[in-house]
Amino acid sequence: MTPPGSASSSGSLWVPGFRAAGVNCGIKPRARDLALVAADAPATVAGVFTKSTVVGAPVEWCRERLRGGVARAVVVNSGISNVAMGERGRRDARRMAELTAKALDCRRDEVFVASTGVIGEPLPMAKLGRGIPQAARRLREDGLPDAAEAIRTTDTFAKRAGVELRVGGRAVRIAGIAKGSGMIEPNMATMLSFLLTDAAVSRSFLQRTLREVVDQTYNRVTVDGEGSTSDTVLLLASGRSGARIQGPKSPGAAAFRRGLLQLAESLARDLARDGEGATKLVTVLVRGARSAAQAESAARRIANSLLVKTATLGGDPNWGRILQTVGAGRVEIRLPRAVVRLCGVTVFEKGGSAGASARRRAEKGLAADEVEIEVSLGAGRARARVWTCDLSTDYVRINAEYTT
Amino acid sequence: MTPPGSASSSGSLWVPGFRAAGVNCGIKPRARDLALVAADAPATVAGVFTKSTVVGAPVEWCRERLRGGVARAVVVNSGISNVAMGERGRRDARRMAELTAKALDCRRDEVFVASTGVIGEPLPMAKLGRGIPQAARRLREDGLPDAAEAIRTTDTFAKRAGVELRVGGRAVRIAGIAKGSGMIEPNMATMLSFLLTDAAVSRSFLQRTLREVVDQTYNRVTVDGEGSTSDTVLLLASGRSGARIQGPKSPGAAAFRRGLLQLAESLARDLARDGEGATKLVTVLVRGARSAAQAESAARRIANSLLVKTATLGGDPNWGRILQTVGAGRVEIRLPRAVVRLCGVTVFEKGGSAGASARRRAEKGLAADEVEIEVSLGAGRARARVWTCDLSTDYVRINAEYTT
Repeated sequence: MTPPGSASSSGSLWVPGFRAAGVNCGIKPRARDLALVAADAPATVAGVFTKSTVVGAPVEWCRERLRGGVARAVVVNSGISNVAMGERGRRDARRMAELTAKALDCRRDEVFVASTGVIGEPLPMAKLGRGIPQAARRLREDGLPDAAEAIRTTDTFAKRAGVELRVGGRAVRIAGIAKGSGMIEPNMATMLSFLLTDAAVSRSFLQRTLREVVDQTYNRVTVDGEGSTSDTVLLLASGRSGARIQGPKSPGAAAFRRGLLQLAESLARDLARDGEGATKLVTVLVRGARSAAQAESAARRIANSLLVKTATLGGDPNWGRILQTVGAGRVEIRLPRAVVRLCGVTVFEKGGSAGASARRRAEKGLAADEVEIEVSLGAGRARARVWTCDLSTDYVRINAEYTT
Repeated sequence: MTPPGSASSSGSLWVPGFRAAGVNCGIKPRARDLALVAADAPATVAGVFTKSTVVGAPVEWCRERLRGGVARAVVVNSGISNVAMGERGRRDARRMAELTAKALDCRRDEVFVASTGVIGEPLPMAKLGRGIPQAARRLREDGLPDAAEAIRTTDTFAKRAGVELRVGGRAVRIAGIAKGSGMIEPNMATMLSFLLTDAAVSRSFLQRTLREVVDQTYNRVTVDGEGSTSDTVLLLASGRSGARIQGPKSPGAAAFRRGLLQLAESLARDLARDGEGATKLVTVLVRGARSAAQAESAARRIANSLLVKTATLGGDPNWGRILQTVGAGRVEIRLPRAVVRLCGVTVFEKGGSAGASARRRAEKGLAADEVEIEVSLGAGRARARVWTCDLSTDYVRINAEYTT
C-alpha cells in the first residue's frame, strides 16, 4: 500500500465519534481505492456540491440525502467515476449506499456516496460488494489517513489536516481529507473533501458555515478554470465533545467558523499546490477593486491566464501579462494608480515599470516554490484571493498523451 | 527580407485607390517591421478596437481620429508596442502620425496608427523618423503583401486575402491583411487587421457592417481566452470602383457584406491556425442552446478548455471533457438529448458513449490538421461558432522561456 502523506500527523486527525478505513477493492491494481468514514451514532451533516449543469449520479444521491440532515457514513471509490451512465449510474450509486448500510447496520438514506475517476465506464459492483464489508471491518479511530490515500486519483500526495479549538471550555476537534483539483484522473476533474468534527452543531448553522467557508477556500482554488461534475464537500458533526453551537450568536460559533476556515484553507492550498504538472503554489491577491465581483473576476483571470501561468513557471516578473489579462476581463483599473507586486517586490507603479533592480529582486522571489502575485487596481476598496499553480509542459503532456 | 506568405496571390490584393509598403526600419534586426498603407485621396474609414480596459496609446489615437471619418494612411510598426508608456506613449503615437502626414502631404488627423510587440519599452522614434519617409517612397499598388510581412511578430506566416464581387454591374474589390492572435510577441497578444475596398460606402454603413462582421469573425477566434490592449481592425473605402452603397437597402449592400464576411472569415481562420505552438485549426460549433449567449458561452468554453485543447493535440475523442466544460460553464444541457460529433462522427448520444467503432473513426478524423467539434445541447435552437487551435508543449515552452 502507498505510504501515508505528510501534511499532518495522524494523531491530530482523530475526531471522537468517527472511524475510518481505506482499502483496495480491486478497481486499481494495488493502491487503496475504497474509503469509508462511519459515525458511531447519527451525525449532523452539511454538504456543498458542484455548480455544474452536468452532474454525476453520486452528487444527485447526496443532494437528496442531505434533506434528511443525518449521516451515518460516507463511502467513496476512486478509479472510476459514475458520470454519464444514465439509469445504471443512479442504480449503482444507490447500491453503494445499500451495501454500506448493510455492513454498518444503518439506513440507506444515511449513507453518502462519492466516486471519482474515469467516466463512461460502469462501476465494478461485484468488487464494491466485497470491498465495502471489508472496509467496514477495518474501521478504526485513526483510520482517516488511510481514507485520504484511498480517495486519491492523480494526486501526488494525500491531503489531510486537523485543528483543535475550545468552545465554552471544551476541546473541539475538526479534521478532514481532500483530493484533487483540476484534471484529476484526466477525464474528469473532481475535488472531494470530507470533514469531521465532534462539536454539536445545529444543522442550519453547520450548513451555512460550510457554505461560507467553501466559498472562501475550495471555491478559490483554480488549476485550469474547470469545474467537475462530481465536486463534493461534506461536513459531519458527531457532537461527542459536548460543545454545543446552535447558531451564529452561540458562544464558540466564531471560533468554530475560524477553525473550519483554517482547516479548509490548508486543504485548499494543498489542492492548488498539487495541480497537475504544477511546480509552484501561487497565491493571487487583488485589492482596490470597484466591487467584490470585480476583485474576484480579476483574481480568477490572473490565476487562469496561460500567459501568467507560463511566466510564473519561467520565473519571469511579467507585469505586462498580468495587467493585460485584467484589462481583457473588462475589470476597471486605473493604470496611474495601479501597483503590481510579485513576492512582495513592486514591479509596476505610477503607470510604468519600477525598473531593473526591482525586476531582479522579483526574479529571485519567483524562484521559490510558493509565490505571491498582488495587484492593486486603484479603482475602489474590494479585494479577493485565489490560489492556483503554474502551468508546465508536464500538464500538456499528461493530458494530451492520456487517451481513454 | 522574409518571403511573402502563401495565403493568396498578390494580384488579387490590389485595390484601386490604395498603395502600400513594408520596410525594415531597424526595430527588428533584418525583417520588415514598418508597414504603410496610403489612400490616393481621402478614404471613408471604419474601425473596431479592443474591449480591454487597458488600452495602448495607438488605440486611443485611432478612436479619436475615427470621429473624423476620413483616412489617408495607416502606419504600423511591429517589434515594440506602445502600451503602458504614459504621456510619452501618447506623444510617440501622435509623432508617428505627424511623420506620416509630412511624408504623404496630408493632415495628421487623417493618419491611423498601430504598434505591436513587447511592452514597457519606448518606441525608437529616430528609427521611425527615417523609416516612415522611406516606406512612403516605396508605396506601390501591389505593396500589400510587403505590409502583411511587416506587421508580423511571432506569426509563422503572413495573413492576407482578397475577394471580388459585383455591385450594380461594377467590379468591387476588398482585400486585407492581418496578424496574430493570442500570445503574439509574448508580452502582449495583439490582433491587427487592415482591410481595403474600392467601393464607395457611406460612413455609417461601413462602420455598422464592419462591426457586425468583426463580431462574427475576428471576435470568434480564441487562442487562449486573452484579449490584447491593442486589437485594431480598420476598413478603408476609396470609392474608386464607382459602386455606391449608401445603406443596408442599397443594391449591392448584401453582396458587399457577404464579401467582407468571407474575407474576414478567411483571415480569422488563419489567425486561429497560427496560434502559438498550434498544430491544428479547430472549429467549434454549438447547436441547440437555449439562447445565443449560452451558445457562445458554451463554444468559448470548449474552445478555451485546456482539457479539450490537449485532447485535440493528442487526437483523443474525449467527449467527457467537452461535456464537463460545458457543464462547468453552467450552460443548460439535456444529456439524454445531447449529441457530440467530432469531425462528423457521433461519439456521444442518448446519454452515453456511441461505442468503440465510432471512437476509432473519430480518432482518424482528429488526426487531420483541421478538425471540427460539434455539440448539440438539446436545450433550444440557438447556435454559435468559434475558431481556435490545440495546445502543445511548444506553447508552454515559448511563453515560459521567453523572459523580457
